[in-house]
Amino acid sequence: MTIDEEFRRRLDAAAEATETQLDALLGAAPLAGEIRRPARLLEAMRYASLGGGKRLRPFLVIESARLFGATGESAQRTAAALEMVHCYSLVHDDLPAMDDDDLRRGRPTAHKAFDEATAILAGDGLLTYAFDVVADPATHADAGIRANLVLALARAAGLGGMVGGQALDLEAETAKTPLTLDEILRLQAMKTGALLRFAVDAGAILGGASPDAGSALTRYGEALGAAFQIADDILDAEGDTAALGKRAGKDAERNKATLIGLLGLDAARARRDFLVQAAVDALAATRLGEATHILAQAAHFVALRSN
Amino acid sequence: MTIDEEFRRRLDAAAEATETQLDALLGAAPLAGEIRRPARLLEAMRYASLGGGKRLRPFLVIESARLFGATGESAQRTAAALEMVHCYSLVHDDLPAMDDDDLRRGRPTAHKAFDEATAILAGDGLLTYAFDVVADPATHADAGIRANLVLALARAAGLGGMVGGQALDLEAETAKTPLTLDEILRLQAMKTGALLRFAVDAGAILGGASPDAGSALTRYGEALGAAFQIADDILDAEGDTAALGKRAGKDAERNKATLIGLLGLDAARARRDFLVQAAVDALAATRLGEATHILAQAAHFVALRSN
Repeated sequence: MTIDEEFRRRLDAAAEATETQLDALLGAAPLAGEIRRPARLLEAMRYASLGGGKRLRPFLVIESARLFGATGESAQRTAAALEMVHCYSLVHDDLPAMDDDDLRRGRPTAHKAFDEATAILAGDGLLTYAFDVVADPATHADAGIRANLVLALARAAGLGGMVGGQALDLEAETAKTPLTLDEILRLQAMKTGALLRFAVDAGAILGGASPDAGSALTRYGEALGAAFQIADDILDAEGDTAALGKRAGKDAERNKATLIGLLGLDAARARRDFLVQAAVDALAATRLGEATHILAQAAHFVALRSN
Repeated sequence: MTIDEEFRRRLDAAAEATETQLDALLGAAPLAGEIRRPARLLEAMRYASLGGGKRLRPFLVIESARLFGATGESAQRTAAALEMVHCYSLVHDDLPAMDDDDLRRGRPTAHKAFDEATAILAGDGLLTYAFDVVADPATHADAGIRANLVLALARAAGLGGMVGGQALDLEAETAKTPLTLDEILRLQAMKTGALLRFAVDAGAILGGASPDAGSALTRYGEALGAAFQIADDILDAEGDTAALGKRAGKDAERNKATLIGLLGLDAARARRDFLVQAAVDALAATRLGEATHILAQAAHFVALRSN
C-alpha cells in the first residue's frame, strides 16, 4: 500500500489544528482559578510543545473520533491535551539525569534552551495542564466522557504505562542480564504503546463507540504502537542525526533494550510488517468499513517513516 | 484560642485514613488499563508519599467535606490524591536542579534515597496518579463532581498555581531587584496557597456546598494558606534543622523572597495573626455554625506550629 494524498492532507490538517489549539491554550491570560502565568515558564511550555513533530497522536485522536461522528473542538482539545503529555515526556526524558539529550526535533532540548529547573517545571506544567484541558466543560458537554478521558489518559501516562515504561527503560541500561523478548515488548507497550493506544481509545470515548468497535480499535492502537516502536529502533540504528532531528545511534551506545539488539534487523523488520498487517486486520474488525482507510494508511506511514 | 483535643484527634484520624488510602492505592497490582507497575518506581512513589508529614491538606479536604455531610471514601480518596500532588511537588522541588535538598521529613530526599531519574519519574507518577484517583468512579458516583475536582486540582497545581509559583520562586533567587510585597504575596498564593485553597474547595465540591458557603470557605482557605506560608518562613528563620526535619535557615542563605526579608519578623508575625483572624471570620460567613470550629482550630494550629 502506498501512502496517498488524502492521508497526508489529513495528517497536515490535524497538525495544524493541534498547533492552533496549543497556541490558544498556552496564552498569557490566566484562566478562572489560576493566579498568574509566569512568562518564562509559559515560554518554556510553548517552546516544548509548539512548532514541532508530526503530531501523530493528535491525528489518531481526531481520526478515531471522526469514525464515530465526533469532530471539531472536542476531538481537537483532547488531541492537544494528549500532545501536551507527549511533549512533557520528551522534556523530562531529555534531562541530564535521564537520557541526557541536547537535540530534539532539530532544536536544543528544553533544558538546553532554558535551564534544568525550568525544563522540569515546564514538563510538570504541561502534564498538569493536559488534565485541565480534558476536564474542562469546553472539551465536552458530558462530564462522564470528560472523566473517562481523564482516567484513561492518567492510566496510559502513569506508573503502569508511560512513566513506568521509562523507568524500566532506564533500569534495563544497567541491568546485568539482557531483557527477554517478553520484557522488551512489555517495556515498549508501556513506554510508547500506552499513549498511542490512548489516542484511539480517546476517539472511541468521544464518539461513544460500541464495545466491539472500541475493542477492535484498541487492538489497532496496540499493533500500531508496537510497529511504531520497531520503526523508531530501526531509524535509530540506520538513520542519521540530521534527518532525525535528534541524535542517531544512541540505542546501541547506551545498551538500550531493543528488538534489533535481540533479534537483528531483518527479524525486526519482519515483525514490524506483521504488526502493520495486524493493525489493518483490527480495523476491518471494527466493521466501520471504508472510513477506516485513513487509519490503515497511518499504520503504514508509522512503519515506513524516515524520521 | 488553644488547640483542643478534638482537633488533634481529627488531624490524627485524617492522617491515618490518608496513610491507609495511599498504601492501598500504591499497591503492586496493576489496575485495568495499566500494564505493569515497576517495582523500583513504585517503591520510590511509596517512599515519597507514605509515613510522613502532618497531612494537613488531606485533613482540610476531609473536614471541609464533612461540613456539607460528605464523609467516607469520596473525601478520603480525594484527600489522598491531593497529598500525592503535594508529595510530588516536594520530590521535584528537592531535586539538585531546583532547591537541592538532601533532607525531608528527617529522611534523605527521594533523589538521595534512590537516584535523580527515579525521583523525577516518581514525581511524575504521583502527579499523574492523583488525577487517576480523582477521576475514578470509586471516588464519586457523580461524574460531574469528579470532572470538577480534576479541573480545580489541575488549576491549583499547574502553571497558574503551584508549578508557576515554584518557577517564580526560582526566578526571584537570581533577580536583580527584590520582589515587592505584592509580588511576594502572589508568589506565595501560587506556590503554597493554591493547593491549600483547593483542599477546602474540594470539600465544597464533594459536599455540594451553596455558592455562598463555598466562596466563604474559599476565603478561609486563602487566608489559611497565606498564614501557613508566613509560619513556614518564621520556622525557617528561627527553627532548627532537627525539629523541622529539613534544613533550616536556607531562605536567607538563598536570598529567597519572604515577607520576613521585606518586613522583618515582628511585622510578619502580626500579619500571620491578622490572617488567622481573617480565616476564622470567613468561617463565620459560611453560616455553618459550630461545625466550623474544627477548621478554626486548624487555622490556629497552622499559624502556631513548631514544625
